[in-house]
Amino acid sequence: MTVAGTHLLGMMTGAGEGPGFTAIDPRTGGALPPTFHDASPAQVEQAMALAGGAHPEFELAGRERRARLLEAVAAGIEALGEELIQRAGAETALPVARLESERGRTVAQLRLFATVVRAGDYLDLRIDHGNPARTPVPKPDVRSMRRALGPVVVFGASNFPLAFSVAGGDTASALAAGCPVVVKAHPSHPGTSELVGRVIVTAVQNLGLPDGTFSLLQGQGTAVGRALVEHPLTRAVGFTGSLAGGRALFDAAGRRLEPIPVYAEMGSVNPVFVLPGRLAADLEDLVSGLANSITLGVGQFCTNPGLIVLPAGPRADTLVGALAQRLGQTTEGTMLSPGIRARYQQGLDAVTGRPGVTVAARRPAIGAAGAAAALVTVPAAAFLRDPVLHQEIFGPATVVVLTPPDELEAVARALHGQLTATLYATPQDLTTFPRLQSILEQRVGRLLYGGFPTGVEVCHAMVHGGPYPATTDASSTSVGTAAIDRFTRPLCWQNFPDDQLPEELRDRAPAGLRRRVDGEWRTTE
Amino acid sequence: MTVAGTHLLGMMTGAGEGPGFTAIDPRTGGALPPTFHDASPAQVEQAMALAGGAHPEFELAGRERRARLLEAVAAGIEALGEELIQRAGAETALPVARLESERGRTVAQLRLFATVVRAGDYLDLRIDHGNPARTPVPKPDVRSMRRALGPVVVFGASNFPLAFSVAGGDTASALAAGCPVVVKAHPSHPGTSELVGRVIVTAVQNLGLPDGTFSLLQGQGTAVGRALVEHPLTRAVGFTGSLAGGRALFDAAGRRLEPIPVYAEMGSVNPVFVLPGRLAADLEDLVSGLANSITLGVGQFCTNPGLIVLPAGPRADTLVGALAQRLGQTTEGTMLSPGIRARYQQGLDAVTGRPGVTVAARRPAIGAAGAAAALVTVPAAAFLRDPVLHQEIFGPATVVVLTPPDELEAVARALHGQLTATLYATPQDLTTFPRLQSILEQRVGRLLYGGFPTGVEVCHAMVHGGPYPATTDASSTSVGTAAIDRFTRPLCWQNFPDDQLPEELRDRAPAGLRRRVDGEWRTTE
Repeated sequence: MTVAGTHLLGMMTGAGEGPGFTAIDPRTGGALPPTFHDASPAQVEQAMALAGGAHPEFELAGRERRARLLEAVAAGIEALGEELIQRAGAETALPVARLESERGRTVAQLRLFATVVRAGDYLDLRIDHGNPARTPVPKPDVRSMRRALGPVVVFGASNFPLAFSVAGGDTASALAAGCPVVVKAHPSHPGTSELVGRVIVTAVQNLGLPDGTFSLLQGQGTAVGRALVEHPLTRAVGFTGSLAGGRALFDAAGRRLEPIPVYAEMGSVNPVFVLPGRLAADLEDLVSGLANSITLGVGQFCTNPGLIVLPAGPRADTLVGALAQRLGQTTEGTMLSPGIRARYQQGLDAVTGRPGVTVAARRPAIGAAGAAAALVTVPAAAFLRDPVLHQEIFGPATVVVLTPPDELEAVARALHGQLTATLYATPQDLTTFPRLQSILEQRVGRLLYGGFPTGVEVCHAMVHGGPYPATTDASSTSVGTAAIDRFTRPLCWQNFPDDQLPEELRDRAPAGLRRRVDGEWRTTE
Repeated sequence: MTVAGTHLLGMMTGAGEGPGFTAIDPRTGGALPPTFHDASPAQVEQAMALAGGAHPEFELAGRERRARLLEAVAAGIEALGEELIQRAGAETALPVARLESERGRTVAQLRLFATVVRAGDYLDLRIDHGNPARTPVPKPDVRSMRRALGPVVVFGASNFPLAFSVAGGDTASALAAGCPVVVKAHPSHPGTSELVGRVIVTAVQNLGLPDGTFSLLQGQGTAVGRALVEHPLTRAVGFTGSLAGGRALFDAAGRRLEPIPVYAEMGSVNPVFVLPGRLAADLEDLVSGLANSITLGVGQFCTNPGLIVLPAGPRADTLVGALAQRLGQTTEGTMLSPGIRARYQQGLDAVTGRPGVTVAARRPAIGAAGAAAALVTVPAAAFLRDPVLHQEIFGPATVVVLTPPDELEAVARALHGQLTATLYATPQDLTTFPRLQSILEQRVGRLLYGGFPTGVEVCHAMVHGGPYPATTDASSTSVGTAAIDRFTRPLCWQNFPDDQLPEELRDRAPAGLRRRVDGEWRTTE
C-alpha cells in the first residue's frame, strides 16, 4: 500500500488543499515523503456530513456486522505487515519490538470489542412490563437500552501511533458502540495514520457499511481539530495528549450552542509511595523495576512514574543513590519528536531550578530528539508549596519527594487527580498510615499494590482514567471494555408495539442477551 | 416541627446572615413567615467543608446503612403528615391531591433506591484474575467497581417541591451512591425545603452517619448556587429548571480549574406526532387526553406536550377545534409563582405575535399568578423558519404545527433535543413514514407510542433525559434506577491483597452480588 498523502473522506480520498507538511524522522531530523496537507474547511464539512449521514444507519446495520468490521480491521492491520512497522518506526523512532507489541495490543483491542458487541451486555437492556389495571393510573410498558451517540471525533496520540490513534482504543470503542468516527491524525505520524485509515475504509467498503462510517483527516496545526470539535454534527470527542491540548478542546466543546462530551486523557505523574516497612526490605528489585518503568519508551507513557514519595532517611538515600546510578547507566533514547524533546528539557529545567530541588541524575541530551533519564529530589515541605513540582514532565524524568513519615498523608492529599498511584507497603505500614490508601483512592483511576504503573492491561476491569487533570471525565475509562459506555446514551420506548422495538428489547429477542426484566435478571433463550 | 428560617449546616443550624426573603402564597400574593436569608459565603464554605469531611466516610459506612438512611428519610417525610402538605400547598398553590401524590412518589423513589443500593448491581463489579506465568509479561490481577464521586450539590426545582427538591430524585440517587449532598433550596418553597431537610438531618444523626452527609442552604438570588457550583470540593451538580439557569451552571462548572459534571434537566416541548391513519380514527379520547395532559398542574411539567404536529386537512382542523373548545372550558389555574406566570404570558405573547401563527384558544389571565390554557396553530413552513416557535413555554400552552404530509419528517428533523416525543400512528402510517421513528429516536430520551408524556414512571427502564437542550448530559437519566450511575466513577485495584480490597471485590464477598469474573457473570454465594 502506498502512502499517498491524502485525506480519507468516507469512501473517497481528498487531495491536499490546506498548508503542506511532512512527517519528520526523529532520529535524523529529516523529512519523510510524501507531503500531507491540513484539511480544508470544506473537507472537514464533507467528512462530518458523511458521518452524520452514516448515523444511525451504521448502528442499525447491527451488532454482528459491527463485530465483523472490528475483526476485519484487526486482520487488515496485521496484513500490512512490515510496511506498517517500518513507517511507524521512521515517523516515531519507536523500536520495532515496541511497535510490534503495540500492534498486537491494537488488534487485540479490536477483537475484544468485537466480543463486547456480540455479547451485548453494554446495551444495559431493561424491561418493565406494564399493568393497564393499576390504579389510579395504568402502569406503562417501558423498555430501555443504550444507543450510539452519533458521530465521534477521535484525535490520534503522539505516543501511541497504533493503540491510541487511527484504529486505537477510542476508535474501536466508538465503532463498537455504533458511532461513525472521524479521526484527526496526529501530525507526527501521518503516514502510519493513512495506512491504518485505508484498512478501515476497505473494511467498511467490503462489509457494505454506510459511506461515512469512517473518515481520516490530516492537519498540522490546531485548526482542523478545532473545526471538528465545533462542528454541529459531532456528538463526542476522544483525545489522548497534553493537558493544554485536552483542556482547549474541552473548553471549545463547552462553548458550543449544543455542548458535547470531550473524553480527554491528559496524563499524570503517577505517584509511587514506598512506605517504611517496604523501604526496610531488599531494594534491588524495586530499583531495577523503577528504572525500567521510568525509561520505558523514553518515558513517553501517560502512566510513567514521575513522582516517588519516600520517608526521608538513610534507606531513602540508599534507594535514590541506587536509582540515580541505574538511570545514569541507561542509554539515551530518541524521543517521538524534536518538539517533545524540547518540552521535556524545558520541564526538567523548570523543576531543577525550583527551591529545595537537588539533581540526583541528569546527563546532557544529544541530537535533535535524544533524551536521557533524570532524577531529582525535594523535601516534602518544598514540594507541598510549589505547584511546578506537581506538573507532569513528559519523558524519563522523576521527582523524589523525601518526607517525614508524619507528612506522608499530607503529600498524598496535595496531589492532583492521577491515572494511577502505586503503594509499596507491608501490612504493618497500612496500619501505621490508616488513611493513605483511602486518600489515594480519591485521587486516581487505578491503584496498584506494588508493581509499576506502565503497562495498562486491556481487560474488563481496567480503569484508565481518573479525576481532573488526569482526564476531563472521571466517570469513564479509555482502556478496557467499559470504554464503550462513553459513546452511548440511554433511550426508552413506552408502550411500543413489539415489532417496532429494537430486536434486543422485543419479547422474542435474539438468544443469550441478559436483560433486567421487572428488576430481575433474565437471559434470553 | 417548626419552620425556623434557618440553614441546615450538617448537624447544626445556621441563622440568617445574608439578605432576607419570604415565601409568597401564589394564590394571594401574600408573604408567608418566617423570613429566610441567603446563605453567606462563610455558610457556603461551612456546608461544603462538612460535605468534604464526610467523604468518603459516608460511602465507607456501607451500603446497608445508606439503604437504611433512605428508608428513614422516607418514613420521616410520611411522619410530617399534614404539616408538610399544608406548607407545600401554601408555597406552591399545588392542590392537596397533587402534593399527596408527589409525596408518594418521593418516598417510593427513596425506597426504590434503597433496594438498588442493597442489590449492588450499580457497582459494576469486575474481576480479572492475574496470571503470573504469562509471557512476555505477567498478567496482573485487576478488580474494579464504581465509587461515589464525592460532594454533590442539588438544586431544588420550583415545580416539584418534593419529588425533585430536597429529598427528591437527585438527592436520593446521590445519597444512594454514597455522595454527601448539599441542597440549594428553591426560593419559592423554602419552608417545605426546611421541613424535609430536617428529616434528613435527623435520619443522618440517628444512624450515626458523618456530620456533613447532608446540608441545606437557602438563597433567593443566584449567588449561593453559583458559589456552591464553584466550590473546589463540589464534585457534581444536579439541577432541574430552566434552560438559562441550567446553562449558566454548566458554564460556571466548565470554567472551574477542575471542571465537574452538571446534570441539568432543562425541559422540552415534548412533540406529539399524530399521523394520518390515526387522525382518521375516532378523536374523542385523543382530544380529552391531550387537554388533560396540557393542563395538568397548570402545564408546569417538563414533560408537558407543548407541540402537536398534524398532517394539515379537515381532520386536523376538527382536532384543533375540539381541543380548543376543551381547553377553553378548563378552569384557570394558579401557577407556582407570579414570576412563572409573568414568563408564561411573555412566552405566549412572543409566540402569538410570530408570522403565520393563529390563536385557536386563549383567555386573559386573572390574578397575580393565574393562567389559562392556550392553543395556537402555525403552518409547517413558518414553524421551520422561526426559532421562537421551537422554544418551551413553561405552562399550559401548546403550538400545533399543520404540515403537508411530505413535510412531516422535515419537521421532526428540525426539532431540538427533547425529553420525550409521542407517536400516534397505525402500522400503515409507519410504512408510509419509514424514517420518522428513527428521526425522533435521535432527538429524545423517551419515545411514546400513544398515550401522553406527562407522568414519568419511576422504574428500572425509565429514561428522563435526552439531547441538549433537554439536558446537559444525554448519556444519563434523572428518573429511574439508572440515575445512581451519574454520581459514581470507576476505580480499579491492581494486585491488591484481598483484605485491602472493598468487601464487594474480595474473593469472599457478601452473598448475592453479581460480578463479571474473567468476563463471565457470577453471583457470589
